[in-house]
Amino acid sequence: MITNLSSTKSDFQHKLSKLLAWESVSNKEVANTVDNIIANIKAKGDEALIDYSIKFDGVNASSMADLTLNATTLKTAFNNLDNKEKTALQVAADRVRIYHEKQKQVTWTYREDNGTMLGQKITPIGRVGLYVPGGKAAYPSSVLMNAIPARVAGVSELIMVVPTPNGITNPLVLAAAYLSGVDSVYTVGGAQAIAALAYGTQTIPKVDKIVGPGNIYVATAKRAVFGQVGIDMIAGPSEILIICDGKIDPDWIAMDLFSQAEHDEDAQSILLCPDAGFIAQVEASITKLLPTMNRKTIIAKALKERGALIHTKDITEAIKISNQIAPEHLELCVEDPESMLDAIKHAGAIFMGRNTCESLGDYCAGPNHVLPTSGTARFSSPLGVYDFQKKSSLIMMSDKGANTLGEIAATLADGEGLQAHAQSARYRIQKS
Amino acid sequence: MITNLSSTKSDFQHKLSKLLAWESVSNKEVANTVDNIIANIKAKGDEALIDYSIKFDGVNASSMADLTLNATTLKTAFNNLDNKEKTALQVAADRVRIYHEKQKQVTWTYREDNGTMLGQKITPIGRVGLYVPGGKAAYPSSVLMNAIPARVAGVSELIMVVPTPNGITNPLVLAAAYLSGVDSVYTVGGAQAIAALAYGTQTIPKVDKIVGPGNIYVATAKRAVFGQVGIDMIAGPSEILIICDGKIDPDWIAMDLFSQAEHDEDAQSILLCPDAGFIAQVEASITKLLPTMNRKTIIAKALKERGALIHTKDITEAIKISNQIAPEHLELCVEDPESMLDAIKHAGAIFMGRNTCESLGDYCAGPNHVLPTSGTARFSSPLGVYDFQKKSSLIMMSDKGANTLGEIAATLADGEGLQAHAQSARYRIQKS
Repeated sequence: MITNLSSTKSDFQHKLSKLLAWESVSNKEVANTVDNIIANIKAKGDEALIDYSIKFDGVNASSMADLTLNATTLKTAFNNLDNKEKTALQVAADRVRIYHEKQKQVTWTYREDNGTMLGQKITPIGRVGLYVPGGKAAYPSSVLMNAIPARVAGVSELIMVVPTPNGITNPLVLAAAYLSGVDSVYTVGGAQAIAALAYGTQTIPKVDKIVGPGNIYVATAKRAVFGQVGIDMIAGPSEILIICDGKIDPDWIAMDLFSQAEHDEDAQSILLCPDAGFIAQVEASITKLLPTMNRKTIIAKALKERGALIHTKDITEAIKISNQIAPEHLELCVEDPESMLDAIKHAGAIFMGRNTCESLGDYCAGPNHVLPTSGTARFSSPLGVYDFQKKSSLIMMSDKGANTLGEIAATLADGEGLQAHAQSARYRIQKS
Repeated sequence: MITNLSSTKSDFQHKLSKLLAWESVSNKEVANTVDNIIANIKAKGDEALIDYSIKFDGVNASSMADLTLNATTLKTAFNNLDNKEKTALQVAADRVRIYHEKQKQVTWTYREDNGTMLGQKITPIGRVGLYVPGGKAAYPSSVLMNAIPARVAGVSELIMVVPTPNGITNPLVLAAAYLSGVDSVYTVGGAQAIAALAYGTQTIPKVDKIVGPGNIYVATAKRAVFGQVGIDMIAGPSEILIICDGKIDPDWIAMDLFSQAEHDEDAQSILLCPDAGFIAQVEASITKLLPTMNRKTIIAKALKERGALIHTKDITEAIKISNQIAPEHLELCVEDPESMLDAIKHAGAIFMGRNTCESLGDYCAGPNHVLPTSGTARFSSPLGVYDFQKKSSLIMMSDKGANTLGEIAATLADGEGLQAHAQSARYRIQKS
């Protein structure tokens, strides 16, 4: 049902590596299909976009007007929610906004004694495209998590694309778009939607950056248009790593493992615990609770193929293994999580203490749920306001500054054999 | 010699688009070669690395010891520089360090009224690989600009690779490596060096992120290993855009245009100026000064193929065109550059006022010279300390916090059909 490992076994590292191994399926056929779609959208714009939407999404459309949702539609979707859902979405949006406000970077400058000014100017990205998957993986929380940081950053225009297979829209997704202040929504998806955002069509304006999750075609298209526009990360399957001291209801840990596994069959749920007895209890809870879950088939497969309960020597060793894994989600289900923080080197998000299950963070705690997967937390960060802002260096040399540095720059330029660099700097040295 | 354009002509936008068009040469043959090299390094490690270095760099090596430079070699390179070069390099390194110290991000947390703690933890990337080109494009300034921000960020290990074609090392590059605190240097290059850093060999440890410029093989290899490790941007040809009010010696502007053009034949130098008479003077300066330049062939070709002198209606229009171009380097050669700053939306670095030629910034002003090219300043930033730090979200719910948010999260999870997410949150709601 789920693999049991022990860190003391000699083949542990080997087994752990096998467990963590993940190669994204990037096959040539998908890449070729995507290349064709992109070329077609570049050449024919709206016309191709409409054709693909009819072909892939089964929608009924004769013009882009049929693939455009207006502001009233979004507002109505929100107003028609029942009160409980409306409040939940509103509370989540507000909390996400408040947390992300703290990530806002501001321009700074400083002046040196000789009057030279240096600094870093912050500007928002101009136009952002937000991809939202349609069908079974339509998550309103994703809309909030992608759109709100962009709005906080001051992005001037936010365009959402969401496919509507067979014309069916998801009211919660539209309500979330309304709440987070999306400017316009087109009901297109797949590689064709990514191409339309990257290159523009007669109707959809070309954006500067594209964010949001999608299937293999969307991911491949994002990779292909990278450079033409900015993109966020290309996510692998979602993962949770729980470090637990065993002093908690084992049902809670089982359910936390399920909450990752229920996403899809490739999702990864791992427990690190120094208490062998507790691990056995968690396994019993898994057996007991699994039959009660609607998505039990997916959960069972994910746990079997990619899950593990790992017995460690102690908590210190659990932290070491966690740093090696660099998990997307890290739960510290322990008495005193704060004392462990310094030792944690890599993790997308850290859920501290027994009250803090991952799903609170997924929806409404405030921090972003778009996080680096597959060990990429070693070098990347959660989606944030900083992903929608960019920096420009500022340099304004005073007369004295140019005099002093002119000679330094010229010397280094000479060393690199760049005569015009040197001369350009020397011109600025004032004869005194 | 150089294209003249006027913003008032009806075909101006069309001509400007053609001028700016840049497609990076990513041909399948290069991609296949690189894929083979990567597969070979993954399979055979050091052995393959030595073979490729003999084959491509013409070095004499029988073991990795022959491709390793020790600390003494670096220090000696620095000590053997003449005093003027030593001082110039030292001043540049110090200024770069001081500026980048200001980019350092720090961990923050805040506590809500009910005791819930939220925050963002900052950690440095663990191990970084720095690629430095060998041969004709061996730039010590690049070593400083890539290594110092990594050191300021607190990266624990910094590994440099630099090919030494026919065994020839560049003393300035080694001196710069010494000055910026590089931990180890391997004299390997090309796609094989990138593969070695990404996957590790018996001798070279696997890194978490690779930065630094390189030729098409290096760039293709970086793109291929992205995901396995982090990478910095993949740069296009370098560009300068000068906005000038015409109140400056035209020789200075000509030389500033040259300083970009001398990099290589694809480099782009553009002047925007509302004063037609001054544009003519700059053109005369170009004609006069070009024969005096050592790299005149490269400069002439770059100016002819990719350069332009553009007559604009006024400075306001020049700023508008600049924002459209989103230049890597932007010189504001005007009386009052500070008054223009608000209007500048996209630029890698902004060089303000007549004293501030780009080359001062390239070497020693302080800000980084690794900047977004080909219009990517619309969505990306200079290389900085932030590229060597990463963030982890922090969430620690209080009892009250978990009570309130448990219900919100569960409602939203129910809406998304994720039962385990909902149950996991509901477990945390305390019966009172």
